[in-house]
Amino acid sequence: QGTRDHPPAQAALRERLLSAVVSCFKRHGAAAIDTPVLELRETLMGKYGEDTKLIYELQDQGGELLALRYDLTVPFARYLVMNKVTNMKRYHVAKVYRRDNPATTRGRYREFYQCDFDIAGQYDPMIPDAECLKIVHEILSDLQLGDFVIKVNDRRILNGVFAVCGVPESKFIPACSTVDKLDKVPWEEVRSEMVGEKGLSPEAADHIGEYVQLHGGLDLIERLLQDPKLSQNKLAKEGLEDMKLLFEYLTLFGITGKISFDLSLARGLDYYTGVIFEAVLLHQENEHVEEPVSVGSVAGGGRYDGLVGMFDPKGRKVPCVGVSIGIERIFSILEQRLEASGEKLRTTETQVLVATPQKHLLAARLKLISELWDAGIKAEMLYKKNPKLLKQLQYCEDTGIPLAVIVGEQELADGVVKLRDVATREEVRM
Amino acid sequence: QGTRDHPPAQAALRERLLSAVVSCFKRHGAAAIDTPVLELRETLMGKYGEDTKLIYELQDQGGELLALRYDLTVPFARYLVMNKVTNMKRYHVAKVYRRDNPATTRGRYREFYQCDFDIAGQYDPMIPDAECLKIVHEILSDLQLGDFVIKVNDRRILNGVFAVCGVPESKFIPACSTVDKLDKVPWEEVRSEMVGEKGLSPEAADHIGEYVQLHGGLDLIERLLQDPKLSQNKLAKEGLEDMKLLFEYLTLFGITGKISFDLSLARGLDYYTGVIFEAVLLHQENEHVEEPVSVGSVAGGGRYDGLVGMFDPKGRKVPCVGVSIGIERIFSILEQRLEASGEKLRTTETQVLVATPQKHLLAARLKLISELWDAGIKAEMLYKKNPKLLKQLQYCEDTGIPLAVIVGEQELADGVVKLRDVATREEVRM
Repeated sequence: QGTRDHPPAQAALRERLLSAVVSCFKRHGAAAIDTPVLELRETLMGKYGEDTKLIYELQDQGGELLALRYDLTVPFARYLVMNKVTNMKRYHVAKVYRRDNPATTRGRYREFYQCDFDIAGQYDPMIPDAECLKIVHEILSDLQLGDFVIKVNDRRILNGVFAVCGVPESKFIPACSTVDKLDKVPWEEVRSEMVGEKGLSPEAADHIGEYVQLHGGLDLIERLLQDPKLSQNKLAKEGLEDMKLLFEYLTLFGITGKISFDLSLARGLDYYTGVIFEAVLLHQENEHVEEPVSVGSVAGGGRYDGLVGMFDPKGRKVPCVGVSIGIERIFSILEQRLEASGEKLRTTETQVLVATPQKHLLAARLKLISELWDAGIKAEMLYKKNPKLLKQLQYCEDTGIPLAVIVGEQELADGVVKLRDVATREEVRM
Repeated sequence: QGTRDHPPAQAALRERLLSAVVSCFKRHGAAAIDTPVLELRETLMGKYGEDTKLIYELQDQGGELLALRYDLTVPFARYLVMNKVTNMKRYHVAKVYRRDNPATTRGRYREFYQCDFDIAGQYDPMIPDAECLKIVHEILSDLQLGDFVIKVNDRRILNGVFAVCGVPESKFIPACSTVDKLDKVPWEEVRSEMVGEKGLSPEAADHIGEYVQLHGGLDLIERLLQDPKLSQNKLAKEGLEDMKLLFEYLTLFGITGKISFDLSLARGLDYYTGVIFEAVLLHQENEHVEEPVSVGSVAGGGRYDGLVGMFDPKGRKVPCVGVSIGIERIFSILEQRLEASGEKLRTTETQVLVATPQKHLLAARLKLISELWDAGIKAEMLYKKNPKLLKQLQYCEDTGIPLAVIVGEQELADGVVKLRDVATREEVRM
């Protein structure tokens, strides 16, 4: 339940998609790593908050207690510490496992791919962070998914907002996870959850509401830097100054048109410590929809400067920032689009079918196809001793093979072959 | 235990190796599929004989009882039945899991990659089987692993031998698994296991010994077809005639020089029903060794016409033949060879580093690198505001980046850049 086989058509589409993502990661100088699907259970415990219950555990069959990885970030942090690496730009494309309620039509599975790019190391502020946003921009543009916006915020700004609104520090995380719902429900509902479930005062909630409904660009950053209360809060000021720097870099990258500084963005995971971001598509495939509708997040990430230190016996920190591309959701979109277009994706790359028009020519086919393979040509033949020519040409049409090389008695006698263009039926002897 | 992280250098070597294998599979017209790492426990039970105890089981956390796949063949058979596919040429490169005693220096892990190519469908005899052997030949030649031999046998011939030597049918499988040890221990030991543990008569064992120590080519097949006893056995005769046909096809492929019809080859798995084969490397890396020494199997496979029927509620059979490339062992060999050569494999593909020779030029670097990325150039820069030029060039040398594009105050004023060849130190303004 919640897993699926990928038949050839899906596997081919997935390969195309992954290769677009990976080539972007490589364009930015990332190296690949791989880690086991199995992790020690203790490595995963205490990293995902409430979601720990979604971790798949292996049966105790003797030896170590194991679990299936839940994401690629925690294994990356574990990798850095175990291998004593303090500087690294890496990508990792692999499957992760969550005992979640699957919603397969929306691309939510229990086994699914993650595509992660992370930069670990102590660097000057916002330069790696800006590159992560550039990567999201490149990938979403490259895949032609339609219009999108990348929302950006900073955990320090959010925490600063909570502080100046009179929220006690112990309630920052619950307040944060309530704010995170603003992309799905209206402010009124968020407010009532804050006051009801999370126990904030109505005044604090109203005050928070004034901030978290703001979004904009450099102008908003400047305005908040002048905000009499917020500018007095150390965390918020740091966050806002870094946000300004980030926008400066993004302007140089020429991508601020798709970036929105959005104070309602909070992100679920506990481990973020600085910049956070999330990309959403604005249009449905369906062009009849007048109003641009968000189809949900297709990429997200942020800065997590504390996670690696949790694995280090001496608590040494390695600052990290990274991005995860929501490949399953993008895959669902591309799959639906392909289906709607009626286009048939080829599942093989075969260039030529080796065919014979008469009986008793299997030897000639085997000899010729072997020459083609040895020359690096992608070639197939039917696994029959005496196939009909029509069947052979039909196979080309069914599977999209563009050429047939035909060798009959006459061709054998003349020492030539006939090369046939399957679509145009043109033939040349050579 | 028995798993490993792949740091960038290993991941890059693995990518190179897998891409050689996959491009061969594609050259032969195979389509990719993917199946979940998780399978229902019941799917895997009863397929691996004694090795069932090596299957990793997941904890019962509610819902289905799951296990990690043990190989890619059983999931393929399950896939064919579930998706009602009766004809398919597919490849699958993925990780499998075995709770075995790891021997990591010899490339034996608990989590490891398998690279499988299989042809499912009812076809004329030996044509797909011959292609599997051609594939092994192409891959091992392509990877330049040194001299190798592909041993070929047929389960029907082996069973025929047992029958004519007076072994009761109930003892075919135990006799088979004893014969399988002939590549590791001398005949005398195999004989004593047959008589002692397996309870064959000394006469039967001696008689078997006369057959299973034979190996050769077409001449041996002809001789056995004339063998007064063996030629009377229906199974053996079928197997020998198909073996003759196979050699005919392999002659047309021009690869019989590396093929040995070897009656001692038995293969461990129960599910084989016809042709079986195994490729072994003949030379150690070490050239001081006078006698060619076998370093073990690097590829193997065979025909399994009954496995798919085990999953079909109506028992409908789909004949299959396939090959699995022993990628981990090959990886170990390539890794040792790379280490011995002192060659350093690049872990990234970066073409150019964007560098500045003076301070306060971060903006120029960010602008230029963004142009390069947008033009599809693989480019990096250091994540520092004011890095020293020497540090930047050192980074190129350390990571193998061949070019540096340098933009300083003068270049900015002139509207040019300097392109520097890192190795030769030549520079051009452009």
